[in-house]
Amino acid sequence: MHRYRSHTCGALRPSDIGADVRLSGWCHRIRDHGGVLFIDLRDHYGLTQCVVDTDSPAFALAGTVRSEWVVRLDGKVRARPAGTENAELPTGTIELYVTELEVLGPAGDLPLPVFGDLDYPEEVRLKYRFLDLRRETLHANIMRRTQVVSSMRRRMAEAGFNEFQTPILTASSPEGARDFLVPSRLHPGQFYALPQAPQQYKQLLMMSGFDRYFQIAPCFRDEDPRADRFYGEFYQLDVEMSFVTQEDVFGTMEPVIRGVFEEFADGKRVTDEFPRITYADALLKYGSDKPDLRNPLLIADVTPEFGDEGVTFNAFKKVIEAGGVVRAIPAPEAGMQPRSFFDKLNEWARTEGAAGLGYVILGDEDGRIVGKGPIAKFIPADVLAAIAMRAGVGAGDAVFFAAGEEAKAASLAGKARTRIAEELDLVDREQFALCWIVDFPFYEWDEDAKKVDFAHNPFSMPQGGMEALQTMEPLSLKAFQYDVVCNGFEIASGGIRNQLPDVMVKAFEIAGYTRQDVEERFGGLYRAFQYGAPPHGGMAAGVDRIVMLVCGAKNLREVALFPMNQQAFDLLMGAPAEATPKQLRELSLRLNPPAKA
Amino acid sequence: MHRYRSHTCGALRPSDIGADVRLSGWCHRIRDHGGVLFIDLRDHYGLTQCVVDTDSPAFALAGTVRSEWVVRLDGKVRARPAGTENAELPTGTIELYVTELEVLGPAGDLPLPVFGDLDYPEEVRLKYRFLDLRRETLHANIMRRTQVVSSMRRRMAEAGFNEFQTPILTASSPEGARDFLVPSRLHPGQFYALPQAPQQYKQLLMMSGFDRYFQIAPCFRDEDPRADRFYGEFYQLDVEMSFVTQEDVFGTMEPVIRGVFEEFADGKRVTDEFPRITYADALLKYGSDKPDLRNPLLIADVTPEFGDEGVTFNAFKKVIEAGGVVRAIPAPEAGMQPRSFFDKLNEWARTEGAAGLGYVILGDEDGRIVGKGPIAKFIPADVLAAIAMRAGVGAGDAVFFAAGEEAKAASLAGKARTRIAEELDLVDREQFALCWIVDFPFYEWDEDAKKVDFAHNPFSMPQGGMEALQTMEPLSLKAFQYDVVCNGFEIASGGIRNQLPDVMVKAFEIAGYTRQDVEERFGGLYRAFQYGAPPHGGMAAGVDRIVMLVCGAKNLREVALFPMNQQAFDLLMGAPAEATPKQLRELSLRLNPPAKA
Repeated sequence: MHRYRSHTCGALRPSDIGADVRLSGWCHRIRDHGGVLFIDLRDHYGLTQCVVDTDSPAFALAGTVRSEWVVRLDGKVRARPAGTENAELPTGTIELYVTELEVLGPAGDLPLPVFGDLDYPEEVRLKYRFLDLRRETLHANIMRRTQVVSSMRRRMAEAGFNEFQTPILTASSPEGARDFLVPSRLHPGQFYALPQAPQQYKQLLMMSGFDRYFQIAPCFRDEDPRADRFYGEFYQLDVEMSFVTQEDVFGTMEPVIRGVFEEFADGKRVTDEFPRITYADALLKYGSDKPDLRNPLLIADVTPEFGDEGVTFNAFKKVIEAGGVVRAIPAPEAGMQPRSFFDKLNEWARTEGAAGLGYVILGDEDGRIVGKGPIAKFIPADVLAAIAMRAGVGAGDAVFFAAGEEAKAASLAGKARTRIAEELDLVDREQFALCWIVDFPFYEWDEDAKKVDFAHNPFSMPQGGMEALQTMEPLSLKAFQYDVVCNGFEIASGGIRNQLPDVMVKAFEIAGYTRQDVEERFGGLYRAFQYGAPPHGGMAAGVDRIVMLVCGAKNLREVALFPMNQQAFDLLMGAPAEATPKQLRELSLRLNPPAKA
Repeated sequence: MHRYRSHTCGALRPSDIGADVRLSGWCHRIRDHGGVLFIDLRDHYGLTQCVVDTDSPAFALAGTVRSEWVVRLDGKVRARPAGTENAELPTGTIELYVTELEVLGPAGDLPLPVFGDLDYPEEVRLKYRFLDLRRETLHANIMRRTQVVSSMRRRMAEAGFNEFQTPILTASSPEGARDFLVPSRLHPGQFYALPQAPQQYKQLLMMSGFDRYFQIAPCFRDEDPRADRFYGEFYQLDVEMSFVTQEDVFGTMEPVIRGVFEEFADGKRVTDEFPRITYADALLKYGSDKPDLRNPLLIADVTPEFGDEGVTFNAFKKVIEAGGVVRAIPAPEAGMQPRSFFDKLNEWARTEGAAGLGYVILGDEDGRIVGKGPIAKFIPADVLAAIAMRAGVGAGDAVFFAAGEEAKAASLAGKARTRIAEELDLVDREQFALCWIVDFPFYEWDEDAKKVDFAHNPFSMPQGGMEALQTMEPLSLKAFQYDVVCNGFEIASGGIRNQLPDVMVKAFEIAGYTRQDVEERFGGLYRAFQYGAPPHGGMAAGVDRIVMLVCGAKNLREVALFPMNQQAFDLLMGAPAEATPKQLRELSLRLNPPAKA
């Protein structure tokens, strides 16, 4: 018989009754029924109920065993007594009568119980992550993560992509977030950097003729920790293709992303064909470029209606005169809500820095729409009817208004849309609602620097190419750039790249950079563009975020093996830590502690 | 029709003759036959011959195109004229008659030609790696690398393993090589480290109950550059399993490794069942723990024979009296070699720091073995016969001798074995000869520190466990530790781990470390051992080395995408580079340049 096990703890079935078997695993739960000990033995594969009684030669030793000890148990498989079967366990109709026990790995008093999956402070969970990872939910999340990553790999391979590993010790990249630096020992005073993403390398792979690249790629950003992202490292499904248009990327990646969600949806619906929503439409209708399409509410622009001369609501009038907008958020069947419903929303709006949310409750008087509520009297009947039509509401419904400078009003309307749908319980959570966001602006106005700058990725191709750059107003230019959004989370982002050096230089020029800047900042890539660059594009999908969604987890640390805490400490391994004087000397570095505050 | 291509450059066949198609790719080679231009258009998938003549509207533009420009070509597929087919190309019976041409990406003068795969200085190749990677051999090597890695992943999944990504920003690990450090911005004066290998994490995964782990894992070591290893980062197929003995690891991993070699062997033979050679035997018979089994020669110990009182060769006698050994290396059929063969080997031995290699040429005199050569006269006939028998040689053969302190003599004999087999052309290169090396010593004598230290991995289980540690002479202890060797290269290494904290503390004690040392150095792992640790073991196989072997490449940089040069510079991206004062300030660091020599 094998030294440690003839079966795993998830393997035994009624057909094994009578067999002599050997199991090894962790003592998940031990119940002492006076003369009879029940040990639920657990391993990666399952749980088997094991029984020791006073007739067993293992009884004395079994009495010394405690939770989470690793033991080997020999014995005979038998049927559980009638009425004690556990239908929820695959092994629930049998048990092991133990005749021999060997302690393979004892355990001290547990700082964190494994059985029961109780809530525990995160600091304890991270310090004793090896115990935490044995717990049911986290163990299952990590396995699901592993399966999601395998599924992505399989689907990408089936779509004709090859996986390439790009360098991790590389050059500092001046775009985007803050780099982690790695001091060079051999070149004193110089530093490598960890890649924020393999963006330049994947484009270089296209220049190198590899046609279809993907990678489950570790990425590194030294950003201040935040609840909704990992500190330090995270993974993306990184993709790039040559000789493609935006349509090809959509056609290739939509089935991969949909397939992954469908595979792990656990019965939830998954969007069949991802709607394509322009950035401008998303801001208008959802008040966000990350719309949660599980929420059925659609925001409408009612600026013209409030601009009507019959309207006498001056607060909105002034906003419109100053160039602002008014947005309407429908609240279906909210007419029956108590006054407190409306007051609460208004209060919430003030915590968001708004003056409040105007609203009108709609009623029916002899087949005619009438309004109630504080501002109803300022709106003539015909305008109210027009507003109701735009917002898609009628008698019995209510409609809220967000007014202000366009970006702010859109954002407030978006948040109100979320809030109202939650209050009215309109969000269908049994689905993964996916969409593409397209036509992102190429440039944006940088208010601090008082200049035009890239809105997103400077490597993207502007729609219309060189001609558009030369003739159009920069802020009206759109990029071949797109996101995938699921349930209100951005889960992927990409673009068709600008592979034409002249167009690249022109694009940077508009943002205030010289050709020399481009050469210095993106030397390797810019050089490659000079020697036969194919049109190419791709995307990067957030692995951690996708896993979090399919696990239904609330926190990224619930889907990661050994994450740092929110103070950027690895409590398990004790990192970061001081370097030795020898290490610092070898790296030609000296500490330069910040002055104490 | 698609914007860029209806077919790839490797797709067209005689069945496409007459079709209007569109190709995009790089101009691999352009031949001007006066009025007829031939453009071999290349992409990742293949090469298609394209023809433009003066009748084509594309002729004028085609005349401006140069090597490595990216172009789109529209036209009609036609049969190549009889006699001009190219049987070596899958598209070799057709050509594209071009009617339209669009330049998608022009190229400047090439610093490195792509066509022809000519030798070029490595510095140029690395700086323009995107051109180098387009070249036939390197492109094929990288694709093979990708396929090898996929094959490893598939085989590991089939064997029931799951892939987990372990952290890259982690704690400094005091064992082994030098760490790369990553300064922490949020914790001034503290550092993360990049993992030399995920050793501790994979063991922690076993403590966490995951049973079967693998990872294609990036590893980082700040070792001085050397021709036969990468500077900085490399990849290993990292594996760990719970509830296993050494035999289980062999039974699991041997089929995976053999399978990978067989899949990519290109007709070379692959060892069917890996022989298991003890470390002691390997040093004796092959003079190395990395024996090249393609070499049929076996070294024999002939110390007793030279110790015989009849032998009067004092140089060896003195060696034996001082506790040294004499090893015999057979040289089959070397009797017919000229004197210069023996002189050359002797000279070589002196460059290795030895006094020389003794040798005897064996002849037959009336059915009796006789010796010739400088030292033959010091060896009586019966001893010569005994030596011949031990070394497996007879009349017509020769035998060489390496004498000295055991380790030195073994090493010299091993090198001589290689040298002799090469000189006599005995190495069968049409194979991948694989074996296990087992029973490595647990400890070794550290001559510098004048103390016992771990020979290899301090995490390994000593054979015999605690009892052996308590009762045996440390230097005679063996470890459950093993290597896989292929054609003289170590391609994998592993062990059964020591998961028992008491045994671990005892093992470190013998090497001169206290329990506190263990706690400080391996805190996370040691802590995990206290809370129910399963028996476990595994290995790590060198991905780069295996790819190099199956590619028949001479240099690791021939199987890597974007390697650094041997001065640890990334010539393409320009790393390492200076940090900005802001970056240094954020990291609370100051440069401390070494004093000029």
